[in-house]
Amino acid sequence: MAVTPDPLFSRVDGALPALSQMEVSALEVVRKQGPLSRTDLSEALSTSRASVTSIVGSLLEANVLTEIGQGKSEGGRPPMLLDVNSQLGFIAGVDIGATSIDLALADFRGTILEHSSEPIDIQMGPEPLLTQICDELEGMLARRGAGPQDMLGIGIGVPGPVQFSTGLLIAPPLMPTWEGYPIKQYVRRRFPHARPVVDNDVNIMALGELRAGAGSDLDNFLFIKIGTGIGCGIISNKTVYRGSDGCAGDVGHICVDYNGPICHCGNPGCLEYMAAGPAIASKGLQAAESGQSEFLARRLKENGGVLTSRDVGDAAAAGDRIANEIVRQSGKMIGGVLAGLVNFYNPRAIFIGGGVSKIGHQLLSTIRQATLRRATALSTRLLRIEYSQLGDDAGVMGAIWLAMEHVFIANG
Amino acid sequence: MAVTPDPLFSRVDGALPALSQMEVSALEVVRKQGPLSRTDLSEALSTSRASVTSIVGSLLEANVLTEIGQGKSEGGRPPMLLDVNSQLGFIAGVDIGATSIDLALADFRGTILEHSSEPIDIQMGPEPLLTQICDELEGMLARRGAGPQDMLGIGIGVPGPVQFSTGLLIAPPLMPTWEGYPIKQYVRRRFPHARPVVDNDVNIMALGELRAGAGSDLDNFLFIKIGTGIGCGIISNKTVYRGSDGCAGDVGHICVDYNGPICHCGNPGCLEYMAAGPAIASKGLQAAESGQSEFLARRLKENGGVLTSRDVGDAAAAGDRIANEIVRQSGKMIGGVLAGLVNFYNPRAIFIGGGVSKIGHQLLSTIRQATLRRATALSTRLLRIEYSQLGDDAGVMGAIWLAMEHVFIANG
Repeated sequence: MAVTPDPLFSRVDGALPALSQMEVSALEVVRKQGPLSRTDLSEALSTSRASVTSIVGSLLEANVLTEIGQGKSEGGRPPMLLDVNSQLGFIAGVDIGATSIDLALADFRGTILEHSSEPIDIQMGPEPLLTQICDELEGMLARRGAGPQDMLGIGIGVPGPVQFSTGLLIAPPLMPTWEGYPIKQYVRRRFPHARPVVDNDVNIMALGELRAGAGSDLDNFLFIKIGTGIGCGIISNKTVYRGSDGCAGDVGHICVDYNGPICHCGNPGCLEYMAAGPAIASKGLQAAESGQSEFLARRLKENGGVLTSRDVGDAAAAGDRIANEIVRQSGKMIGGVLAGLVNFYNPRAIFIGGGVSKIGHQLLSTIRQATLRRATALSTRLLRIEYSQLGDDAGVMGAIWLAMEHVFIANG
Repeated sequence: MAVTPDPLFSRVDGALPALSQMEVSALEVVRKQGPLSRTDLSEALSTSRASVTSIVGSLLEANVLTEIGQGKSEGGRPPMLLDVNSQLGFIAGVDIGATSIDLALADFRGTILEHSSEPIDIQMGPEPLLTQICDELEGMLARRGAGPQDMLGIGIGVPGPVQFSTGLLIAPPLMPTWEGYPIKQYVRRRFPHARPVVDNDVNIMALGELRAGAGSDLDNFLFIKIGTGIGCGIISNKTVYRGSDGCAGDVGHICVDYNGPICHCGNPGCLEYMAAGPAIASKGLQAAESGQSEFLARRLKENGGVLTSRDVGDAAAAGDRIANEIVRQSGKMIGGVLAGLVNFYNPRAIFIGGGVSKIGHQLLSTIRQATLRRATALSTRLLRIEYSQLGDDAGVMGAIWLAMEHVFIANG
């Protein structure tokens, strides 16, 4: 078994070994289908019984798998069943948003043991926020009688473009003070045996939906997050597709109107500038102030002069004509862009999540209508367009799976 | 070695075996890097020397590889070098266009032995055209003293949407009489030992560029064909990405103007309706008839009342103001769509081919400008936008490689 040394990975007292590709594949199968016998595993991997025996031997020796007793006999000696050793250590999932953060501690099988969610302000900068995150994760470990050395993997999603190989943020518009900050190194100082992985928030949501949600039996799908911005996670052949520079899925700056208003990126008519949360809120404010919408004028007063996209959604749900029109406009623009992506990428499904996706069913139905109307017949025949099955948990679930996938990858 | 029986594959006298995934990988390495020794091969495949010895044994027995003599000694006994057995049989590449057809015969290494190109009319329907193609391929074989039984693989590109698994065309707008026609079965009747594979023309162009052109060291790139329509071949992780229904890359029907004219697909403002060859020709005709362009008016008379996009390109190259503006309009629309695809897919390169791409450099430079201006900074930092290196040969080269990739795949 080749172990590639990783200078950043500093566990000295029994460091986790880097596993071979076949060993990682075997672990994934057991995690997904276990408990199972060596014969089942050899069938699932299409490998000879002899090599499965050798692979399982290494994984048992490394304490990654465990034998949990005998299964049902099918004639001969009953087979010994294998399962992932959930006691090997802990995994954390961290989903950082612009205004909130989700943390979860899981066992080595991916079962969530504790989950917390709280408001933050991303503008506080990397050190204070990472300190807060690590303190809370230590608390979660302590409540299970464990310490920082028992954390084996940490997956972190951030709302900005990430160079995946280094885990550094590149020119993040929502969190400029995080640019180039060494998140992985900070986390490793606090959890010396953990292998941290950093990725864009929409990528981890897509991964969550793939591993634990509605995408589990799909090869190719898209996850669209609608919030302050609009982003897309791409699943290609059952893995996250990140593109040549790690910035694939940046659909928020696709043009929907060449004569539209200038986005903060400098170009006219970007989708996210015209259709995301702030655009909906600002159109709602206009409708409230001009008196076109009584509902929104009342809500504006109650809120002390502030309106959110959620308020516009509430107005639409209450039958407010203007609010409905505002939501429909956003849905049409988003669906128009999705139609182009469906023609190009021919995914089997599009899952929609993010805060603004919760403003009501009108948005989803307009997006669906606009996408299906514009995309080609062949590409939409079997296409599903649905809300994320995991909802708010897609990010934190994906972060846990991202961490689990990378625990044994050298230099991961 | 598991051989999955294929009812359509009828070679009885020494049928080619289906190879295992590892054997196919070994063959690909030798084809790309050979001649090489077993040690080189074991390094390239990251596999033990023992399993390489067993893999090579099977491939030598099947006559797929051959030992071509001893290489240079590096101290001990000089190693035996392996190469693909180019004499095993023949491979054909067929690139069917709407108005022309390219045929090539290659040896088993992929070296082209004979290449022909001629005008056709796709409207003649499948039987007469396939008969003509097979007759010509038989002629090429005969000139090498070989017969139909020596053809091992045939790759066929067609200008329409293909269900890759069956090789059937689905609702092809340019060739309606081909819908559902069993191309593979016809070809197998003529070449009983050949495994035919049918794919969309742009997919095979992208594959050609990947295997034998400017994309050979790139993981992710796009190939855009501009002709009567506009299509896109997608390379993802060094393989052709076909999407969930095999229709990925249908970028010609992405909307560029929601208030635009109605395309033959029924939607307003499709890219190909507004920017491809026929749109350029029709705007040129208008300029000629209205007298806005003297050059085009003259050309129209010379051509007997017909203008093509090539004529508009000639006028632009000669400095005609209106013609230049027509070409620029197309380039801007194509670049605008490509910018969105670059944001979404983050490819390393875009290669441009197809008949209309040859109307002059003005088109490429406008496409490049429009794409770079609109796409995000991170996704364009290393992006190359260039003409296809293989040009007119991209399709036929890709068809040969497609055939070679599928010769040993059961049910391929």
